Amino acid sequence: MPRPDRRRANQLRTVKIVRRFTRYAGGSVLISLGHTQVLCTACLTPGVPGWMENQGSGWLTAEYNMLPSSTPERKRRDNRPGGRSQEIQRLIGRCLRAVVDLKQIGPNTIWIDCDVLQADGGTRTAAITGSYVALVDCLVSAGKQGLLAKDCKPLITAVAAASAGVVNGKVLLDLSYQEDCIADVDFNIVMTGAGKFVEIQGTAEQGTFDKQQLDKILNLARRGIGQLLKTQQQALAGK
Amino acid sequence: MPRPDRRRANQLRTVKIVRRFTRYAGGSVLISLGHTQVLCTACLTPGVPGWMENQGSGWLTAEYNMLPSSTPERKRRDNRPGGRSQEIQRLIGRCLRAVVDLKQIGPNTIWIDCDVLQADGGTRTAAITGSYVALVDCLVSAGKQGLLAKDCKPLITAVAAASAGVVNGKVLLDLSYQEDCIADVDFNIVMTGAGKFVEIQGTAEQGTFDKQQLDKILNLARRGIGQLLKTQQQALAGK
Amino acid sequence: MPRPDRRRANQLRTVKIVRRFTRYAGGSVLISLGHTQVLCTACLTPGVPGWMENQGSGWLTAEYNMLPSSTPERKRRDNRPGGRSQEIQRLIGRCLRAVVDLKQIGPNTIWIDCDVLQADGGTRTAAITGSYVALVDCLVSAGKQGLLAKDCKPLITAVAAASAGVVNGKVLLDLSYQEDCIADVDFNIVMTGAGKFVEIQGTAEQGTFDKQQLDKILNLARRGIGQLLKTQQQALAGK
Amino acid sequence: MPRPDRRRANQLRTVKIVRRFTRYAGGSVLISLGHTQVLCTACLTPGVPGWMENQGSGWLTAEYNMLPSSTPERKRRDNRPGGRSQEIQRLIGRCLRAVVDLKQIGPNTIWIDCDVLQADGGTRTAAITGSYVALVDCLVSAGKQGLLAKDCKPLITAVAAASAGVVNGKVLLDLSYQEDCIADVDFNIVMTGAGKFVEIQGTAEQGTFDKQQLDKILNLARRGIGQLLKTQQQALAGK
Amino acid sequence: MPRPDRRRANQLRTVKIVRRFTRYAGGSVLISLGHTQVLCTACLTPGVPGWMENQGSGWLTAEYNMLPSSTPERKRRDNRPGGRSQEIQRLIGRCLRAVVDLKQIGPNTIWIDCDVLQADGGTRTAAITGSYVALVDCLVSAGKQGLLAKDCKPLITAVAAASAGVVNGKVLLDLSYQEDCIADVDFNIVMTGAGKFVEIQGTAEQGTFDKQQLDKILNLARRGIGQLLKTQQQALAGK
Amino acid sequence: MPRPDRRRANQLRTVKIVRRFTRYAGGSVLISLGHTQVLCTACLTPGVPGWMENQGSGWLTAEYNMLPSSTPERKRRDNRPGGRSQEIQRLIGRCLRAVVDLKQIGPNTIWIDCDVLQADGGTRTAAITGSYVALVDCLVSAGKQGLLAKDCKPLITAVAAASAGVVNGKVLLDLSYQEDCIADVDFNIVMTGAGKFVEIQGTAEQGTFDKQQLDKILNLARRGIGQLLKTQQQALAGK
Repeated sequence: MPRPDRRRANQLRTVKIVRRFTRYAGGSVLISLGHTQVLCTACLTPGVPGWMENQGSGWLTAEYNMLPSSTPERKRRDNRPGGRSQEIQRLIGRCLRAVVDLKQIGPNTIWIDCDVLQADGGTRTAAITGSYVALVDCLVSAGKQGLLAKDCKPLITAVAAASAGVVNGKVLLDLSYQEDCIADVDFNIVMTGAGKFVEIQGTAEQGTFDKQQLDKILNLARRGIGQLLKTQQQALAGK
Repeated sequence: MPRPDRRRANQLRTVKIVRRFTRYAGGSVLISLGHTQVLCTACLTPGVPGWMENQGSGWLTAEYNMLPSSTPERKRRDNRPGGRSQEIQRLIGRCLRAVVDLKQIGPNTIWIDCDVLQADGGTRTAAITGSYVALVDCLVSAGKQGLLAKDCKPLITAVAAASAGVVNGKVLLDLSYQEDCIADVDFNIVMTGAGKFVEIQGTAEQGTFDKQQLDKILNLARRGIGQLLKTQQQALAGK
Repeated sequence: MPRPDRRRANQLRTVKIVRRFTRYAGGSVLISLGHTQVLCTACLTPGVPGWMENQGSGWLTAEYNMLPSSTPERKRRDNRPGGRSQEIQRLIGRCLRAVVDLKQIGPNTIWIDCDVLQADGGTRTAAITGSYVALVDCLVSAGKQGLLAKDCKPLITAVAAASAGVVNGKVLLDLSYQEDCIADVDFNIVMTGAGKFVEIQGTAEQGTFDKQQLDKILNLARRGIGQLLKTQQQALAGK
Repeated sequence: MPRPDRRRANQLRTVKIVRRFTRYAGGSVLISLGHTQVLCTACLTPGVPGWMENQGSGWLTAEYNMLPSSTPERKRRDNRPGGRSQEIQRLIGRCLRAVVDLKQIGPNTIWIDCDVLQADGGTRTAAITGSYVALVDCLVSAGKQGLLAKDCKPLITAVAAASAGVVNGKVLLDLSYQEDCIADVDFNIVMTGAGKFVEIQGTAEQGTFDKQQLDKILNLARRGIGQLLKTQQQALAGK
Repeated sequence: MPRPDRRRANQLRTVKIVRRFTRYAGGSVLISLGHTQVLCTACLTPGVPGWMENQGSGWLTAEYNMLPSSTPERKRRDNRPGGRSQEIQRLIGRCLRAVVDLKQIGPNTIWIDCDVLQADGGTRTAAITGSYVALVDCLVSAGKQGLLAKDCKPLITAVAAASAGVVNGKVLLDLSYQEDCIADVDFNIVMTGAGKFVEIQGTAEQGTFDKQQLDKILNLARRGIGQLLKTQQQALAGK
Repeated sequence: MPRPDRRRANQLRTVKIVRRFTRYAGGSVLISLGHTQVLCTACLTPGVPGWMENQGSGWLTAEYNMLPSSTPERKRRDNRPGGRSQEIQRLIGRCLRAVVDLKQIGPNTIWIDCDVLQADGGTRTAAITGSYVALVDCLVSAGKQGLLAKDCKPLITAVAAASAGVVNGKVLLDLSYQEDCIADVDFNIVMTGAGKFVEIQGTAEQGTFDKQQLDKILNLARRGIGQLLKTQQQALAGK
C-alpha cells in the first residue's frame, strides 16, 4: 500500500525554511514540512528566572502553541497550555539547551516561541528544526546589539528532529497527520550535527514494538535528520 | 514636522490582502498594513452558544490575540485575554455581525480568529478589514460544502475600518505605533460599503478634543475606509 | 410613541448624588439616575504599579462590578471581570485620568470602585459622573491627612458622561435599560467641565448610522452632560 | 475599662433593618449594626444544583462578599472567594436552611447574597439576621408571582445571630472590629425564634477558655439574639 | 439501637499513632482512628509570609487534602481547595498556633500537611491530634539541625480534638461517617493538655439543639480528648 | 566509583508491593522501590468522557501527584498539575491502556491515582509497575460486584517499567534521586509481560548519547523489568 502522498518509506516531505519572516524577534523562521507550518522565533532578554539567579549562567525556555485555525476542526484557544502542549514545549526547550553553552550567554534568557500556523503531523519536530535556525539568527543579532560578549560562541553544534513510525507494519519516515492517526508506533528523534542522540521518545499507540523495529526506526530517522541538518545549513548560508 | 515614514496626513500605509494563507479554515487572510500583519481566519461550525439555542438564528464571534513575537519587546502569552484583547475582540465581533444577517446562516457559529503576527499600530482596524474578506471566503466555502442553504445570502454589505488621530495638533490618518504613542486623540472608525457608520470609538489619550477636530477626523477616516473597501473588492475579485 | 417613563427625548432621568454614603473611603458617593444606582468610592493609597515606578508620577485606576442582585435576573458573581466589565472599568479609568494631573499626586494610586447596586441602563455613565465627585472628596481628604502636598491642585477640570441613542428612528438622551435593549444605535459620551470631549463610543447595535444622526446625538449628549456637571457642583457645594 | 463606644457589656450596637433597599430581588434588606452595613438580598430561581435533581426538594445557598471600599484599608477584589469568605457563606447557608423546609419550595433555588458595604465587626452575624428578613420577603414575593404553591409555608421559625467574646478578661456582647482585634475568645452564636441553638462557633484567638466562660458567653448571646429577633419582627410588621 | 460498630456512646474508635511514617519531613505521623487514616507531616522552613515580615515572630500554617481514593466514591482532585477543605485547614492552623509560642521560633514557618488516605468520619479531629505529634517531632528535629535556638521551648501545651454529636436523639462520641451522615447535631471540640477549650464548632445539621444537650456533648468530648492526649504522650514516649 | 548505596550497575533497589493498602478503591497498592514510595489505586466508575460516548468502549485515565512532604524540601501543592506531572500522568495512562482491551470493559472509566508519598527517583516507573497490580485487583473487584461481564478478560498482558541512565560514563539501572541529578542520560523504559516495548523515553540531560550506549541501556532495562514482572506476579499470587 503506497503512502497517501506517494512518498517512499524513507522520504521526508518537502522542507522549506524562510528566515526573517517577522521583524521584531532576533530570529524569526517560518518552517514548512509539507502542509505543516510553524513560526519559530527566538529572542534574548536580560535576566533569568528567579531559581537561576546569581549562578553566572543564562537560560533558554520554549513555548509551543497551535493557532485555532491551524487544524481541520477549529481548535479552542487554551487558557492554559494543556498537557500535550506542555510536554512539547518542555521537549523543545531541552533539545535546544542541549546545543547551547548557557554559561556563555551570561544572565540572559532566550525565549523560543513556536506557533503552529498549520498542523499536518510532525509539528514538534518541525518546531525543533526551525527553532535552531531562529536561535542562530538570534545569537548573531544579540551579538551585534552588544547584548553578548564579543568572543561569545555559545553554540556547541546544530540540532534537528524527525518523526518515524510503524504504519500497517511498515516503518516510515516523517508521518503526516493522516499516517500518524493510524500508526501503531510513533517516534520522535532528536539528533545533533555531530550525529549523536539528544532525545528519543517512542510510544506504541496501539500494540507494542520490538528491538528490531526500534533499530529500523532509528536508522530511518538518522537519515532524515541528516537531510534536515543540511537544509538548515543552506538556509543559514543564504543572506 | 513630517510623518516618520513621510506619508501625507491623509495617506494610508501600503495595504496588502493575501487570501488562502492557510488551508483549513474556510476563509484565511493575511492582511498587512505597513508593518502590521494580522492573520484573519473564518470558519463555520454547527451549533450556537447555549443562550441562543432554538432561536432559529446563527451567531458570529471573534477572538483576537497577539503572538509573543509580534511586538518589539516579547509579549507574554496571556493565560486569559486581558482587558485590551477582550475589548478588541468584542469590537471585531460586533462590526462583522453588523453586516451579516445571522438568521440566514441557520443554527451555525462563525468563528473569526485574528492573530497578530506583527504589530505596528492599527491592529484592530486591520483585523476588521481583513476578517471581512475571510468571512466572504468562509461563506462561499460553507455554501459549497452544503453547510448553508443554496439561496442563502447572509452578507448585507462590506465593512472596513481605519484609525485616525491628532498628533502634535495635526489630524492624521492611519497612525503607526510610533505615532499612536504620542497621539493626543485616537479614533477607530468602522464603516460599511454603503458609507454608513457601524462604530466610532475615540479617546483623548492626553488632553481633550472638540467638535471641529472630530469632524476632520471623521472625514479623513471616511476617505481611508473608502480605499480599504476597494482593496477588499480587488482581493475578492482575484482568483 | 412616547418614552416608557414619559420623558421628553432630551430629558435626563432624575439624578441624585449622595456624598459620604460609606465612611472608610476618602470619597464615597451613591449616584442614582432613575432606577440605576451606583456606589462610587475613591481612595488614595501610597505606591504605584510596578511599571510606573520611579517616574515621579501617580496613577489612577478603576474597577467596576455589578452586585448579583442588581439586575432583574440574578447575575452570577464573576470570578474574573468579564469582557464587558473590563471594557467599562478601562473607560472609567481613562476618563478620570483625563482630568487629573497625575504628576501632582506623587507616587500614590487612586482607586476608583464602582459597584452597581441597581442597573437600569446607563451604569457606566452614572459611574463616571459619580466617581468624579468621589474623586474630589478623596483628594480633599488625602490633603487633610497630609498624604498630598499642601499646594497640590491635581484636578484640571470636571468630567461627566451621558448616554444617547437612536430608538425607533428617534434620537433620545439617557436610555433606560428597556430603551437600550431595542436601540439601533447606542452612544456613551464623556465631556469635561470645559465643554471638550474626552471619549466618544458609539455602536450601531442593529443597522448603521450616518453623520446627521451622529451630530444630533452629540448635541443631545452635550446638553445632558451640562446638566450633570451642574448637579455635581451642587452636590459638592453641599456640606 | 469601658468599651470604646461606652456600651454596657451586654448591650448590642444600634440595629436598623431597611426592607426593599433595592427593587429587583424578591427580598432586599440593608441591615446596619453600628457602623457595620450589609446588603442582604434573597431571590428564588427555578431549578436546583445537579446533585439535588429529582429529589423533589429545593435548595438554598448563600454568597458573601465584602466591597473593596468596606474596610478602612481598601480590600482587593477577590477573584475567588478566599477561605474566610467561603467559611462565612457556608455558615450563612446552613443557618438559613435550618429554618426552611426545603421540600415545600419545590425544585427551586433560593439565592442569598450578602454584600458588605461597611465592615466594623459582626458582619457574618448581621448577614444572618438581615438575610432572614430578606428571605421572608422573598418567599412572599415568590408566592404572589405564583412560583410557590398557595398553601406553601416553608418557614419553620425565625433565625438570628450575635457575636460575643472575651476582651481583657471580660465577657462582652456584639464585638466591634476594634474589640474583635484584641479579643482572647471570639464566638458567633445562631439561635432560632424558638430559643434553640442552630450553630455555635467559638475560637480562642489568643489563649484558651473554660466552661464557666463559655456559659457566660452563651447567656449574653441568648439575650442579644432575643433583641434581634424582636427587631426582625418589627421590621416585618412595617409595611 | 446499638452503634454500627457496637461501641458504647462514650467510646472512641481504636486510635493508633505511627511516628516517622515518611522520612523527609521533620515530623511525619500516620494517625488512624478506626478506618480514618491521616498522614500528618510538619516541617520548618526559613522565612515567613510577606504580611508578617520584620515582626520578629514565626508562623505556622496548615494544609488539608483528601486523596481521590480516600472515599468510597472516588473524589475528584481539587484544583483549588474547596470551601470545606479551606475551613478545615484554617481550623487546624488556628488550633496548633494556640499551643505554639511563635515568637520563640524566630522568622521561620512551620508547614503542617494533613493528607487523608482514608476517610471514615472525624478526619479533621484526627488531623489535629496527629499533627500535634508531628509538630513535636519537627521542633526537636529543627533544634538538632540548629534551625532553632538552643533554649527555644515554643510548645505551651498539647492539643487534641474529638467529634461528638446527636444521633437519633442520643449523644455519641467520635462519630463514624455512617453516623455523621444521619446526625442531627455535629460538634468538633478542641482542647489543650491543660483541659481548656481552644475551639468549639457545633452545627445542627438537621433540627436544633438546646443547652442541656450542649453540656452532654462537651462532657463526652472532654473525656475522649483526655484519652487522645494520653495516646499522644505514649507515642511520643516511644523511641 | 561505587554507587552511593553500593548496588551493582545492573541491580534494582529493593522492591516491595503491598496490596489492599487502603480499603475503598478496588485496587490499592503501596509500592516501594528503595526509599521511593507510591500509593497506586485503581477504581472503576460507570460512564466515559464526553468525546468517547457511544463508541461501545471504556476508558482508562491516570493522575499523578506528589504529596508536599514527599521531597526533602517541602513541595508546594499544585493548584493545577504542572508540566512535569502532566507528562507523567499521560505516560502512566498510555502504558496501562496498552495492556487493557478497553472494548471489553464496556462504557466504564478506570481511574488510576498515583500519589507519591516519598520521592527518591524512579517515581514514574514505580507508579506504572504498582498501578498494574492495582489494576488487576480493581478488575477482579469490579467483576465480583457485577460491574463487568462475567466472561470479560480485558487484560492482554502485564506491564512494568524501569529507569536506566548514564552516570559518570557508566550505564546504570534504576537511578536514585542522587544519581538522577548528575546523570548525563536518563531513560524510562516500559515493557510488557511478553517482552515487547510499550514506551521508550530517553533524554540527554547533559551532553548526548550514541547507539552503542542506547543498546546497553535497553539491555539493562529489559533485565530489571523482568525482575519487576516477577515481583508483580508474586504479589498477585499472595492472598
